[in-house]
Amino acid sequence: MAPKKQRVEPRTLKGMQDLLPEDVLPRKRVVAVIAEIFERYGYTPLETPALEYLDTLLGAGGEGVNKELFRLESPEGEAIALRFDLTVPFARLLAQYPDKLKPPFRRYALGPVWRGDKPGPGRFREFTQFDIDCAGAETVAVDAEMVSVMCAVMQALKLPSYCAVINHRKLFDVLLEGCGITEEVRQKHVLRVIDKLAKVGLDNIQLELGPGRVDESGDPISGVGLNLNVIEQLLNFIALKAATRREMVQRMSEALPRTSAAAAVVEEMRELAEALEALGVPDEHARFDPSLARGLDYYTGPVFEMVLPTAPEFGSVMGGGRYNQLVERFLDRPIPCTGMSVGLDRLLSALKKLGLADTPATVTQVLVVSIGNVPKAESLRLAAELRAAGFRTETFFASRKKMQMGNQLSHADHYGIPVAVIIGEDELAQGVVSVKDLLEGKAGREDISDREAYREAGKTGQVTIPRAEMITHIRRLLALPDSAQAAAS
Amino acid sequence: MAPKKQRVEPRTLKGMQDLLPEDVLPRKRVVAVIAEIFERYGYTPLETPALEYLDTLLGAGGEGVNKELFRLESPEGEAIALRFDLTVPFARLLAQYPDKLKPPFRRYALGPVWRGDKPGPGRFREFTQFDIDCAGAETVAVDAEMVSVMCAVMQALKLPSYCAVINHRKLFDVLLEGCGITEEVRQKHVLRVIDKLAKVGLDNIQLELGPGRVDESGDPISGVGLNLNVIEQLLNFIALKAATRREMVQRMSEALPRTSAAAAVVEEMRELAEALEALGVPDEHARFDPSLARGLDYYTGPVFEMVLPTAPEFGSVMGGGRYNQLVERFLDRPIPCTGMSVGLDRLLSALKKLGLADTPATVTQVLVVSIGNVPKAESLRLAAELRAAGFRTETFFASRKKMQMGNQLSHADHYGIPVAVIIGEDELAQGVVSVKDLLEGKAGREDISDREAYREAGKTGQVTIPRAEMITHIRRLLALPDSAQAAAS
Repeated sequence: MAPKKQRVEPRTLKGMQDLLPEDVLPRKRVVAVIAEIFERYGYTPLETPALEYLDTLLGAGGEGVNKELFRLESPEGEAIALRFDLTVPFARLLAQYPDKLKPPFRRYALGPVWRGDKPGPGRFREFTQFDIDCAGAETVAVDAEMVSVMCAVMQALKLPSYCAVINHRKLFDVLLEGCGITEEVRQKHVLRVIDKLAKVGLDNIQLELGPGRVDESGDPISGVGLNLNVIEQLLNFIALKAATRREMVQRMSEALPRTSAAAAVVEEMRELAEALEALGVPDEHARFDPSLARGLDYYTGPVFEMVLPTAPEFGSVMGGGRYNQLVERFLDRPIPCTGMSVGLDRLLSALKKLGLADTPATVTQVLVVSIGNVPKAESLRLAAELRAAGFRTETFFASRKKMQMGNQLSHADHYGIPVAVIIGEDELAQGVVSVKDLLEGKAGREDISDREAYREAGKTGQVTIPRAEMITHIRRLLALPDSAQAAAS
Repeated sequence: MAPKKQRVEPRTLKGMQDLLPEDVLPRKRVVAVIAEIFERYGYTPLETPALEYLDTLLGAGGEGVNKELFRLESPEGEAIALRFDLTVPFARLLAQYPDKLKPPFRRYALGPVWRGDKPGPGRFREFTQFDIDCAGAETVAVDAEMVSVMCAVMQALKLPSYCAVINHRKLFDVLLEGCGITEEVRQKHVLRVIDKLAKVGLDNIQLELGPGRVDESGDPISGVGLNLNVIEQLLNFIALKAATRREMVQRMSEALPRTSAAAAVVEEMRELAEALEALGVPDEHARFDPSLARGLDYYTGPVFEMVLPTAPEFGSVMGGGRYNQLVERFLDRPIPCTGMSVGLDRLLSALKKLGLADTPATVTQVLVVSIGNVPKAESLRLAAELRAAGFRTETFFASRKKMQMGNQLSHADHYGIPVAVIIGEDELAQGVVSVKDLLEGKAGREDISDREAYREAGKTGQVTIPRAEMITHIRRLLALPDSAQAAAS
């Protein structure tokens, strides 16, 4: 038998989070809003296990992600790991169920993913992704759809200010190829350097594109080794500014070499601009920005991020892009895909900061308070009656000394329960109940210091009424439609 | 860089499941129904990470569960594991956040748990639990509430026949103590033997309670070593039958020794019966059964399971019980708790078998079908218009040769999309659309074999109408309220 009496210290793993009611309730609301938007665009839910074979995941996200995998063994001794995103499992599904998941196929998925990263504010080792992906459509019209969904989510969440930032992975490539730099390894190195722009600044980027530099800790960072002329072209390109998406396409076209590869990328950006207009996404909410790089290795086309101009400290709260080659890991033919992911933890942090995620710490609407020697069965019967009327109702049972009314009402206060229904032996005998409006009581008491006055004010909003009138009265307190209407709906 | 061209075989881990749309959609519906019931009883959602420190989990569920843990290491090299249930993490929370989670506290939690068990039909290594627990209330009134919630869930899911089976952990103990058997180890051994009743049958139980036996494979199973008289008393006790809960309490009372410990357990059963009546749970839907044992080690009082008389092969689809000592693993004082867990995977298997979980394989209501050289932007604009009217709408984009109308309509057919809106260049020029009722078309075609007739029938339910009438027409096809009403709601 296991040791029984040894105390275990209750603690949460580093980089993980316990979500208490005040965290979960706004999260559930946000998830419901987002799921409704996803479904509005025809995305259907899919779920995969948290655990995958190691070879499914290894190398799919690049070296950085490989190092961050939580690895373990199956009972059969196989190498397995916790998924680091929802995109690689989706690619696996497409290859595994070709007859069921016929393209074009749109799915959404909500779930935790794990990365053994350095934790920080809003940065967790177990975090929730909420993704949509569309498989089997090569046109950038679907990339525009991703951006449109991102904007629809922000609008539905009532964010006062938001902007999707969009770029195309191949723009740097064609620029570099125009300068004679064609090796994929070097092109990816350039991309990784530019991805650090916001973190290390333009001067450091310039050094890293050239000879390299020494960082603050004295460690050497090797450079890409580009010559000054190429670096200048690159930096001029990522600094391009324009008032509209169409204008930016024009600027990009002028800055790129006159090659057919460059013309093809510019044409895709033009189509993307047109599709965004058709979907009703204004320039204010989605702009083209040639400096956007994004970290993950598997993107092959348009990439996008959602940023909050009024809360830039949260970085991007959604991001995604086109990945036309990922399914080839598992299948002998490509399935072009594009997708985006909502970083739910970060988005919630931002909403909280902006005051858009305030909810009470409970779902309960009515607390049944029983005083004196009221039999438990009477409290249960009353609770059952309230639930049958549709109220989210809880009863209060504790040891005898904790059953004082004051204690029961502070329970309601602690969790923010708005209504208490109080029964004692007298009430039972007379067929009445006392109904107390706890939010009104609270509001009235906020600037009272005197003890007596406090008690008096606490009594406001309490009425003793016949039990037959209880339901209607509580409906009014909770600002719910009256029962006749509710029954009809 | 990771190898890029090497193909990885797409496969799912043993004992794990990929949930495709036809699995996820009924699951989401069932989860929503259950969550509404849980909230109706005042349970508030909480979430904890999938990973816990190993010492938090080890020994909490007994030896069997210890062996089944998926163990790994944190990036700091600490011993950690995937949770095997949602109850132990809840006990941890209660000890870790005493100021926030003041008892009585009711929470629900939905999430995956992991056990490296032998997989079987409906038995997975990663499976979903959907739990409620109430902390801080010692009265069996809350155990009755658990059973009441279980029944409310079954009723809301429209199960034609269901019955909660209820027992009390201490009944065997007082019976054994009456025969002079007081060692806890032996009492637990008896419990484990009786838990195998359904699996191995009464004769084998009788042997295991006595001298032991040899199983089919020739392995010896050591017995508890009780004498014949005690075994007879035990077997008579678990065979007790009664028409009502109150009658069963009477029978139990008569069969137990006249000790104060026995009287206390009988009194709890009597209170439980009274509370179930107060909560409106009829005898038909919850019966006392002295043969119920339940596997987990941590139960200390009433235990309960939900079974389906019309589908007994699924075993119990919910189960739970009182665990007054689990929080003491983490805290220097006890917090009495009771709770129950819905086995979502098993419940869904049962609902499927009973035909109560049928949904289409998509959320999409309308597919935009574009034919000929209609610009993509026109499809996007039409889709945006349909979404703005509230329809879950998807567009179809594929390579040119897959853009034939037949291919687009078979896409709708494959996923069960009910309505297609078709635009070609002519329709665009004339300001009309063709709206096709795909479900009607399908119904009409089921017993047609002739090719021409099939094609003709396929055209039924297709009308060409002015674009301004499109929304109203589709609302009618989908049997939705007209837009004026919808806007008002």
